[in-house]
Amino acid sequence: MSGNTFGSHFRLTTYGESHGPALGGVIDGCLPGVPLTEALIQRDLDRRRPGSGGLTGTARKEADAVRLLSGVFEGETTGTPIAFIIENTDQRSRDYEAAKNLLRPGHADGTYLAKYGRRDYRGGGRASARETASRVAGGAVAAAMLAPYGITVTAYTVELGGIPAAVVKADDAPDRPFCAADPAVIPAWEARAKAAMAAGDSLGGIVEVVAAGVPAGLGEPVFDKLDARLAYALMGIGAVKGVEIGSGFAAARATGATNNDPIVTPPESNHAGGILGGIANGQPIVARVAVKPIPSIAVPQRTTDIHGNPAQIVVGGRHDRSAIPRVVPVVRAMVLLVLADLLLAQRRLAP
Amino acid sequence: MSGNTFGSHFRLTTYGESHGPALGGVIDGCLPGVPLTEALIQRDLDRRRPGSGGLTGTARKEADAVRLLSGVFEGETTGTPIAFIIENTDQRSRDYEAAKNLLRPGHADGTYLAKYGRRDYRGGGRASARETASRVAGGAVAAAMLAPYGITVTAYTVELGGIPAAVVKADDAPDRPFCAADPAVIPAWEARAKAAMAAGDSLGGIVEVVAAGVPAGLGEPVFDKLDARLAYALMGIGAVKGVEIGSGFAAARATGATNNDPIVTPPESNHAGGILGGIANGQPIVARVAVKPIPSIAVPQRTTDIHGNPAQIVVGGRHDRSAIPRVVPVVRAMVLLVLADLLLAQRRLAP
Amino acid sequence: MSGNTFGSHFRLTTYGESHGPALGGVIDGCLPGVPLTEALIQRDLDRRRPGSGGLTGTARKEADAVRLLSGVFEGETTGTPIAFIIENTDQRSRDYEAAKNLLRPGHADGTYLAKYGRRDYRGGGRASARETASRVAGGAVAAAMLAPYGITVTAYTVELGGIPAAVVKADDAPDRPFCAADPAVIPAWEARAKAAMAAGDSLGGIVEVVAAGVPAGLGEPVFDKLDARLAYALMGIGAVKGVEIGSGFAAARATGATNNDPIVTPPESNHAGGILGGIANGQPIVARVAVKPIPSIAVPQRTTDIHGNPAQIVVGGRHDRSAIPRVVPVVRAMVLLVLADLLLAQRRLAP
Amino acid sequence: MSGNTFGSHFRLTTYGESHGPALGGVIDGCLPGVPLTEALIQRDLDRRRPGSGGLTGTARKEADAVRLLSGVFEGETTGTPIAFIIENTDQRSRDYEAAKNLLRPGHADGTYLAKYGRRDYRGGGRASARETASRVAGGAVAAAMLAPYGITVTAYTVELGGIPAAVVKADDAPDRPFCAADPAVIPAWEARAKAAMAAGDSLGGIVEVVAAGVPAGLGEPVFDKLDARLAYALMGIGAVKGVEIGSGFAAARATGATNNDPIVTPPESNHAGGILGGIANGQPIVARVAVKPIPSIAVPQRTTDIHGNPAQIVVGGRHDRSAIPRVVPVVRAMVLLVLADLLLAQRRLAP
Repeated sequence: MSGNTFGSHFRLTTYGESHGPALGGVIDGCLPGVPLTEALIQRDLDRRRPGSGGLTGTARKEADAVRLLSGVFEGETTGTPIAFIIENTDQRSRDYEAAKNLLRPGHADGTYLAKYGRRDYRGGGRASARETASRVAGGAVAAAMLAPYGITVTAYTVELGGIPAAVVKADDAPDRPFCAADPAVIPAWEARAKAAMAAGDSLGGIVEVVAAGVPAGLGEPVFDKLDARLAYALMGIGAVKGVEIGSGFAAARATGATNNDPIVTPPESNHAGGILGGIANGQPIVARVAVKPIPSIAVPQRTTDIHGNPAQIVVGGRHDRSAIPRVVPVVRAMVLLVLADLLLAQRRLAP
Repeated sequence: MSGNTFGSHFRLTTYGESHGPALGGVIDGCLPGVPLTEALIQRDLDRRRPGSGGLTGTARKEADAVRLLSGVFEGETTGTPIAFIIENTDQRSRDYEAAKNLLRPGHADGTYLAKYGRRDYRGGGRASARETASRVAGGAVAAAMLAPYGITVTAYTVELGGIPAAVVKADDAPDRPFCAADPAVIPAWEARAKAAMAAGDSLGGIVEVVAAGVPAGLGEPVFDKLDARLAYALMGIGAVKGVEIGSGFAAARATGATNNDPIVTPPESNHAGGILGGIANGQPIVARVAVKPIPSIAVPQRTTDIHGNPAQIVVGGRHDRSAIPRVVPVVRAMVLLVLADLLLAQRRLAP
Repeated sequence: MSGNTFGSHFRLTTYGESHGPALGGVIDGCLPGVPLTEALIQRDLDRRRPGSGGLTGTARKEADAVRLLSGVFEGETTGTPIAFIIENTDQRSRDYEAAKNLLRPGHADGTYLAKYGRRDYRGGGRASARETASRVAGGAVAAAMLAPYGITVTAYTVELGGIPAAVVKADDAPDRPFCAADPAVIPAWEARAKAAMAAGDSLGGIVEVVAAGVPAGLGEPVFDKLDARLAYALMGIGAVKGVEIGSGFAAARATGATNNDPIVTPPESNHAGGILGGIANGQPIVARVAVKPIPSIAVPQRTTDIHGNPAQIVVGGRHDRSAIPRVVPVVRAMVLLVLADLLLAQRRLAP
Repeated sequence: MSGNTFGSHFRLTTYGESHGPALGGVIDGCLPGVPLTEALIQRDLDRRRPGSGGLTGTARKEADAVRLLSGVFEGETTGTPIAFIIENTDQRSRDYEAAKNLLRPGHADGTYLAKYGRRDYRGGGRASARETASRVAGGAVAAAMLAPYGITVTAYTVELGGIPAAVVKADDAPDRPFCAADPAVIPAWEARAKAAMAAGDSLGGIVEVVAAGVPAGLGEPVFDKLDARLAYALMGIGAVKGVEIGSGFAAARATGATNNDPIVTPPESNHAGGILGGIANGQPIVARVAVKPIPSIAVPQRTTDIHGNPAQIVVGGRHDRSAIPRVVPVVRAMVLLVLADLLLAQRRLAP
């Protein structure tokens, strides 16, 4: 009930502050017999590191080296909990001393204070983007478990700073700058990003994620629909403010005649995003998330201190200028976690 | 894990098919001492009945009379489970015999079959909109429990068939045709609805919901954010394909300087929709949902039968031409259920 | 979290007070395709009715007629929630008026008052033995689902009023007076029961339950052991004060050499009760529960009223003189519910 | 659902094999502001170490040094997950090579193999008693959180090898050999233990646990009774085969007149063990557990290998001769975890 565990059957529990000794997690419920190594997890972790995309990232350089502590024996999972740890090695807490009593607009400073009556002012604590390293590690284990079943998840950026990609060429997206869906849009995004950086400002964008190979029949009716679970997983990512499935908000402007997908082989459209009545229909599952511009900006902002006195703040520190592309592997990881959990829950994976 | 229970502390379990003997539910966890009558629940149920809005509804007329079976003694809740039942009185199953072997496009017929290996072909079974009566009844109990704490939830329609309302005048919205946010838009919506009906087609729209009085500090960090819970609850409504919080998808096109809400008293903006870092900040909580056009249309559609043979279908029966306005009280109910559950979980309600 | 739901995958939610309009429940998660009728449930319900055993039961005569409301179509379960209702028809609440302000020793009157700040003084409310009718109905559905897998559960009385049965002849036990394990002990138990009744006093006893056909490998390690789940299920029955598995408390007095079961075919002993390390080993699962004498006795007792003033109470009303044999089908039902839930959770049942 | 998490509101997730790199856990849900240090946890861990009791323990010597990784800032908990790690430093896996293909009677070797299709044959893996170090660490945090509320839990041994303690003098029990309830019984227990050791055999016993300061009204009705939760927690300890509350199995032989506790001030008896109808009545909560003799004995035993071939086994390695006294702090820890979880769930702790 305290928000740090995801899933019931493939269950990821995470811990760790951005400036504490370590962060990590425990995965409970992974099938036995899955080949798993630290290198396999590390590969996905490296993709969410600062500087891994085209947009200049944070100045903070962490090795983010993952170590497995349990649940793996002779190179395969045993069915017992898989614990992993990522030690924090580059913690410059003193950067935060200056502004420790000011609430940063758009951040969780004030709401954490309201909830807990205290906060670890060294960085964002649990609200830091660093927390997502544990999600990506969990997603890497889920991907390893699902691979033999032909289930794959791909995420990429379809819009940045208001500039959409014209087409989606998903295959190489994770290796492109910005994880861009379309290589042709990269120059325009680079220009947009440079302008934002020069202004001390930040950008938002839209990430799309596609899950292929999900068997028809997966999902639950009524409250616990597959799309409801995806919405929960994706809206639970820090900077996400909107989630849509298939045609999403465009469906609200369509009519039944244009929005219904005729049931033909092969399918001619996928307005439903692969889900009908909360249950997968066998087509690819498609979702999009709206990522807000990160709130840490160098522009002076009006705020208050923790005692309620008016103040002005200019956020320094080492920050990304957009959650994109670092959020892209996190979006992918969350969808993997949803599918691993539900496939286990619904007995779709042997044994 | 089977999808028919919502919440953990204020927990609603529902049952019932559209053409079975009855539908109903059990609410477990309501505080003792809440004044509760059948009339109070009935009032909200009547708001989601066919014909309650301006758009011509289904021809099916159900009294939808609710009966309380337990958990209330001398006019107040006792803290034990509150069971309610709504008997089905108008079941014309023979309407469905003709098309019982055809899969309706945009419906859950095929996915239920894939999941369960069988289906109750008399109407939508659990996927029927009738199921939402139990949600509304649960929401009415939640509203009664929350009322003394000054927490209120209001929902209204802000767009229909692609035509947005220009302004939001929330106060009388539940009593207006379409639960329209703006009375001025009603004539345009009526014209749009009539045209759709004449074409045998259907319309989608957008519903907005606002929760006032939610205390700052409510919510959980990381996976179980308040906005994640709302997204889960709202995406779990049958026709919903998108959910956004605060500025939502518009935030993806904003910059940090324009999207951050300055922390000033009184607040000057609410782009965050009342939630930062997954936790309420004390401002009103604002969400919007995209409602797809209902898939039951009189236009001929390509489909297959349950054996996979190509076929054509024209959906008859007694159907709404839009999920709006009937979905509006359901949206409100789901937000009430989220808040009741979380407020109890986080010890925000005495005792 | 409110105690009225059992299980996560085969989930029974119950409701209803002994003197309200009805009691009943909702079963969510039952596999589709299980043959199920009201008559099948009714048979098990009739076994827990007053007067069904050898010991004179309560004077209250309820038909306890069950009605199915959902989840069954054409004689088989559909996979959707199965709701059932048992209307209360014989409610003589006035019996309770006289003592409504006195706390009955050994009863939950005082603790419910401490918890809820109020209580339904007409009978035991939710703490009434009548609540167990819903458990037995749920167990009947579980039994129907498990039958094709060769899993059966049998319960019988092995001790009453301090007099043990010499041997266990389980086959006809449910049809014998007291559900006695051994027909030879019945005359002694009848004499003991008559003496207790004459004295206005009540008796306790011990019930044994055996589950056959449970596959090796069922159960979870560490906290959620199969024996832990059984202990939870059985200790959650009103009058139960002790639970043991296999040799139980006798194991505390044995040594490793005598308590270990040699691993031979066929097995020569079952001190482990079919469970090792929390996981079934394929032998029959054996548990015993200690049932306290029911606290409603005609002997004058010292107590207080709800304001704390000393008082004397003689409990009248219509009460059993022992929870045995009515508790026997409840013990069986709880074990069935545990197994149905866990077998589904661990993907041991197709599909 | 995979057994390695305990509790929902004060939630302990554990990981680690006896012969892997480390073991540890994550506590989620602890209130903020609780003073917490590694030394405080270490003190309880030292009490469950080999050689801490009077009975000769295992030859394995582990420092069991705990390190805190998150959730504590400036000496107090922050409300975020508290992760701890205990590195394994003394792993002599080669001890197990000889018997790696033999199933040890009374152990979980065969059932783990049936469940997972593989096992980490180096020691007991997750079924090792070493796993309980994480439980004790979790209990230490629970104790710290509950201390300001006057809630304390004490456990001690009341019977060993069939020899009961005559009286209970709880105060110094944790520091006595065997955690004996009565210092006078120690010589007899030492003689019994020496005889068992000489014979290569092992002993069982009975541990009692008392929780003081639990507020009246704590607990849930029906399925989720406080005693049901305690039974679940205690039966989930490796060697435990029986659990009783208050008079327990003795209640089965009493009558209502002798077993009912009169409601008088001060109380004259506590047959109920502080729980009525599943809810605490304000008296001390009393439970007892039956601990089986540990199955690792030097006596030759009949068994099979993992392929089903008959074999004989003599278990070597470094093993305790009884689970007592090492199980005593584990029993205490589990009761602390139950109370911490339930007190948070029921809003009995501020805020």
